[in-house]
Amino acid sequence: MKVSIIGATGYGGLELLRLLHQHPHVEIASLHSFSAQTEDISRFYPHLHTVYHQALAEIDAVKIAEESEAVFLATPSGVAKDAAQPFIDAGMKVIDLSGDFRLSKEGYEKWYNKDAAPDAYLEQAEYGLAEWRTGTDATFISNPGCYATATLLGLAPLVMQYLVVEDSIIVDAKSGISGAGKTPSENTHFPETNENMTLYRMNKHQHIPEIMRQLQVWNENIDAITFSTSLIPVTRGIFATIYAKAKAGTTTEELLALYRESYDGKPFVRIQAQDVYPTLKQVTASNFCDIGLCYNERTNMITIVVVIDNLVKGAAGQAIQNLNLMAGFDETAGLDFIPVYP
Amino acid sequence: MKVSIIGATGYGGLELLRLLHQHPHVEIASLHSFSAQTEDISRFYPHLHTVYHQALAEIDAVKIAEESEAVFLATPSGVAKDAAQPFIDAGMKVIDLSGDFRLSKEGYEKWYNKDAAPDAYLEQAEYGLAEWRTGTDATFISNPGCYATATLLGLAPLVMQYLVVEDSIIVDAKSGISGAGKTPSENTHFPETNENMTLYRMNKHQHIPEIMRQLQVWNENIDAITFSTSLIPVTRGIFATIYAKAKAGTTTEELLALYRESYDGKPFVRIQAQDVYPTLKQVTASNFCDIGLCYNERTNMITIVVVIDNLVKGAAGQAIQNLNLMAGFDETAGLDFIPVYP
Amino acid sequence: MKVSIIGATGYGGLELLRLLHQHPHVEIASLHSFSAQTEDISRFYPHLHTVYHQALAEIDAVKIAEESEAVFLATPSGVAKDAAQPFIDAGMKVIDLSGDFRLSKEGYEKWYNKDAAPDAYLEQAEYGLAEWRTGTDATFISNPGCYATATLLGLAPLVMQYLVVEDSIIVDAKSGISGAGKTPSENTHFPETNENMTLYRMNKHQHIPEIMRQLQVWNENIDAITFSTSLIPVTRGIFATIYAKAKAGTTTEELLALYRESYDGKPFVRIQAQDVYPTLKQVTASNFCDIGLCYNERTNMITIVVVIDNLVKGAAGQAIQNLNLMAGFDETAGLDFIPVYP
Amino acid sequence: MKVSIIGATGYGGLELLRLLHQHPHVEIASLHSFSAQTEDISRFYPHLHTVYHQALAEIDAVKIAEESEAVFLATPSGVAKDAAQPFIDAGMKVIDLSGDFRLSKEGYEKWYNKDAAPDAYLEQAEYGLAEWRTGTDATFISNPGCYATATLLGLAPLVMQYLVVEDSIIVDAKSGISGAGKTPSENTHFPETNENMTLYRMNKHQHIPEIMRQLQVWNENIDAITFSTSLIPVTRGIFATIYAKAKAGTTTEELLALYRESYDGKPFVRIQAQDVYPTLKQVTASNFCDIGLCYNERTNMITIVVVIDNLVKGAAGQAIQNLNLMAGFDETAGLDFIPVYP
Repeated sequence: MKVSIIGATGYGGLELLRLLHQHPHVEIASLHSFSAQTEDISRFYPHLHTVYHQALAEIDAVKIAEESEAVFLATPSGVAKDAAQPFIDAGMKVIDLSGDFRLSKEGYEKWYNKDAAPDAYLEQAEYGLAEWRTGTDATFISNPGCYATATLLGLAPLVMQYLVVEDSIIVDAKSGISGAGKTPSENTHFPETNENMTLYRMNKHQHIPEIMRQLQVWNENIDAITFSTSLIPVTRGIFATIYAKAKAGTTTEELLALYRESYDGKPFVRIQAQDVYPTLKQVTASNFCDIGLCYNERTNMITIVVVIDNLVKGAAGQAIQNLNLMAGFDETAGLDFIPVYP
Repeated sequence: MKVSIIGATGYGGLELLRLLHQHPHVEIASLHSFSAQTEDISRFYPHLHTVYHQALAEIDAVKIAEESEAVFLATPSGVAKDAAQPFIDAGMKVIDLSGDFRLSKEGYEKWYNKDAAPDAYLEQAEYGLAEWRTGTDATFISNPGCYATATLLGLAPLVMQYLVVEDSIIVDAKSGISGAGKTPSENTHFPETNENMTLYRMNKHQHIPEIMRQLQVWNENIDAITFSTSLIPVTRGIFATIYAKAKAGTTTEELLALYRESYDGKPFVRIQAQDVYPTLKQVTASNFCDIGLCYNERTNMITIVVVIDNLVKGAAGQAIQNLNLMAGFDETAGLDFIPVYP
Repeated sequence: MKVSIIGATGYGGLELLRLLHQHPHVEIASLHSFSAQTEDISRFYPHLHTVYHQALAEIDAVKIAEESEAVFLATPSGVAKDAAQPFIDAGMKVIDLSGDFRLSKEGYEKWYNKDAAPDAYLEQAEYGLAEWRTGTDATFISNPGCYATATLLGLAPLVMQYLVVEDSIIVDAKSGISGAGKTPSENTHFPETNENMTLYRMNKHQHIPEIMRQLQVWNENIDAITFSTSLIPVTRGIFATIYAKAKAGTTTEELLALYRESYDGKPFVRIQAQDVYPTLKQVTASNFCDIGLCYNERTNMITIVVVIDNLVKGAAGQAIQNLNLMAGFDETAGLDFIPVYP
Repeated sequence: MKVSIIGATGYGGLELLRLLHQHPHVEIASLHSFSAQTEDISRFYPHLHTVYHQALAEIDAVKIAEESEAVFLATPSGVAKDAAQPFIDAGMKVIDLSGDFRLSKEGYEKWYNKDAAPDAYLEQAEYGLAEWRTGTDATFISNPGCYATATLLGLAPLVMQYLVVEDSIIVDAKSGISGAGKTPSENTHFPETNENMTLYRMNKHQHIPEIMRQLQVWNENIDAITFSTSLIPVTRGIFATIYAKAKAGTTTEELLALYRESYDGKPFVRIQAQDVYPTLKQVTASNFCDIGLCYNERTNMITIVVVIDNLVKGAAGQAIQNLNLMAGFDETAGLDFIPVYP
């Protein structure tokens, strides 16, 4: 299958390139960027020299639709809502990695403070939380955000089973700095970031509404969650510690059994053994989402630890997983390598 | 005032040395270590060369009591419970930085899995959470643990005023690697620690019982908390994100006002402005405890962010603050410098 | 081709596993360790769960020789000199990643302070600096050290052409901490290593004699070099800055042309454009050796910057490259992926 | 003595503030910035809250000259050449931390690509390499650059004694990222900087001419040096490894004796014991310059390792040391604390 990547010069686009390049059923037909044109992609990323060369091509929707069967948009928020339309209209497989199609019109305009895509397009988009998609016939996927992926995968079994007190859910999520993208800012300036940890956008992160929207699909009683986002001095990763109060007494064993069953047959979610919590580094550069948990009988509180790589399972990897599902490829195609460690 | 430091070769002892060296009213009479003898302290820490030289001296309690008025014990757990006794008996000012005198006999034996100090000594020890000590006539201080300091300072105003649902308290605490001390282990091995984050001892950290003990002094209705401890790849610091459900509706403004009032006249606790959260690095190498908070009216949840330097406010700095209070020095003596940044 | 890995639980062994797992012509028949037995390899490395499972097997040379065509030894120095013998005797393809077969008997005993392997075995070993091997019929390869690989690839064109003053060569080499292996020590303790840089074994590193031996093969006039080794706070990588005085005036253009020609047809050595120096990160997790250089006409000094990943081109990657050459596979087989970045 | 700081919001200015605040003979009269006005300095640096408050004041040279006896300029290059003039004219003690007064008119215009200060001012400036100043009656000091300080202190004894081959000097200098200042850029972007090392401006760094100028004062035969500058992922520090060929045979002992003698009575230069090299971290946050060295009899090469903190000995600390010398204070006044470690 031939595919095109729009937004190839950002970290998300680069990760698509890395993973698709070794995908057994995919050929990268063209790379595109709104911020650069005609230069070879290796100009931006010297590590690609001799491994992968391709000049950025003009974003000509007609031509892209002729040459490729699928298109990935890895553009900053506010770009795909317009740029994706011709590809959707052309009936291509479209996977948008930005937030542009994750919310309702009102939700988007409130949380992103920008005009939303037309309703007709918003409605066509299927939210691509790969493990919990209900069908595989969608051709237009809105790929979840990194925080949302970790949070939803961590909460799904509990929420679907109505096991936790609805207003008790707290997500304490920490992100590596690559989540801020490729553009330097004060928040990514090494002397300020190194040896530091900061909390930002408390209860205000734009991934909250997409989380809420999905939680409410699963459990209509959930009105709100508490959601904190912090930056830790690592390049990659989301480490989410999630707390929720059990409605009834339970045990760690029971909960682990539930999670194992819930994710049975889901190759990228690995439930840890009892008393074992995943480390961030054990999923770096992979599409895995590793989950450990415990129940505290004294407080009736469940703690769930979820780790993903924000650029893989939280972006490019899940996008490819979604392509695999759409295209009828093996779900793990292109994603079944041993990741780099340490 | 002449003082002695026992356990001078560890990170806590070194931090005592750094801070006491510039204390206007203190002279360091002697340094001691259970793991080394007679060598100059600069052998262990080359940065001290020409700045500070002193040979480690034998731990002769009689001699120490003759020469010094106060003694700091910065030894691993299980050492001070015996080593501190002659200094207490001699009526010296004694400040123990370990966990040996923070719990009841049963508590210590359960959580530390070692024999406890005799009750007579345990009873003499005052828990030295400096901002909340109720008197200044104690001569034997059990200095709080780093996690406990951050947690208790962050919770005190809410708990004392009975403002939060008793079983809703969650502490998500992250620590820098120096908290593990000076001895190398797999958990401190750079290739494993760098670019990583790990959660350990979920609901099992030995600082939990000392936190509970103090919380119950303030509010007898609190039975248990949820407490997670993680390691982040920084050298110094505790970053605690604390969540608790408000009993009644409130506002961020009201809560900030309460915290400002509660810590009025407490020079080392700095309450942030609304919508501002402290960064870990803004307290590095200082005795400050910076606190930011917010109230989420949709979930009724209060989030409190507390940052301290684990080796200063979480150990040596607070110990000196306690000495200042005991000795009638200005509370900030020796601790009022501008810390290094960035 | 079936292969076995001895020393699979170390970082070098793990990197062999990562790379061989995706090698198109290789199947991993068995994993072995001298420090552990029968446990599944994923016990040591949780990131392997569900991706790769194999129990460590007994080191039974007869059985290994029956099942595998090639064996990699990624053991600490002093182990392979004995352990490799039965595999060599059995006529297997043997690649030793340690220093045990890189030196003469006297050299080894002087620099490693251990008994050397018998001369008969030392003589059979071909030094596997892959780009400069003179044949491909060897079946027993002594894989170069990480510092040696970077240094020799950086110096080869100059030295072979007798272009530099023989006693002017200086290598200022910096290594990531994974070079110290998996065992924690004071030198790898995060609080000591982070935010630090240290120089160690000045002119005393055990890679010096293997470098000298090869340099003298190329140029009998070189008697000695100046060689410094430092640790920088990164997990992976060797960054070698090499200085040598030109015998006659030259230009940067001429030198770059020489290097391009020397490495023409060598897929893993990438010569940078003029005025461009490689960054360490651009080779992380890849088998590349990137080289930039310049000539200073005022001092007649040539500066060469060489970067490799110590665990790949400096160990496991080059070992696989050597296997590819031995086995008649494409030289880049299993090594031609896009590496992870950033 | 009352002093003013111009450029107080940058990292150099902040470090002046930290150190001068605890200086026993200095009072900070006013802070100024060209990029901000009237805001309190703690707005830029939250760690200063409650420790130090002062509103930035207008840069009114007359007023500053009335209120202060000395002025520090910690401004980007190109600012002080104009801004310093009224203070010099007013006869104040002036210390410029930028490169504006370190070179001749031609040198400055060539290397900084900007108009130079008028000759009359350039001539008044004394180059303030504190350990090697020849008098103490200057009132206008041009404070050396960080790379220059490390290099010159490391080379002085050898060069002054004509012990090394003049065209053999090589400086391999590595810097922490704070050397790039407070403004974010691609080179300081955490995901690019972390786990990376880069070489930049090979033989082109603007500190080269100031190094050459001073070397030639000491030894008229030195025409040029080889000088490489690299960035390592630490916040603070210069780690310079210097190589030079000895004219005649010598020994490490002899050289160490020479260095000890040369720096006898210089409190901030610490010569290490034989076979010991300083680590970067042992000088972090201090004004020390630690030096280790060795002689290689096989290559006749001397290797010198020099470490400083770029913001202290390489900027603010040396500036204060220069003030101390000018003002007749003890040379270590304000600089004799135990620095933070680890």
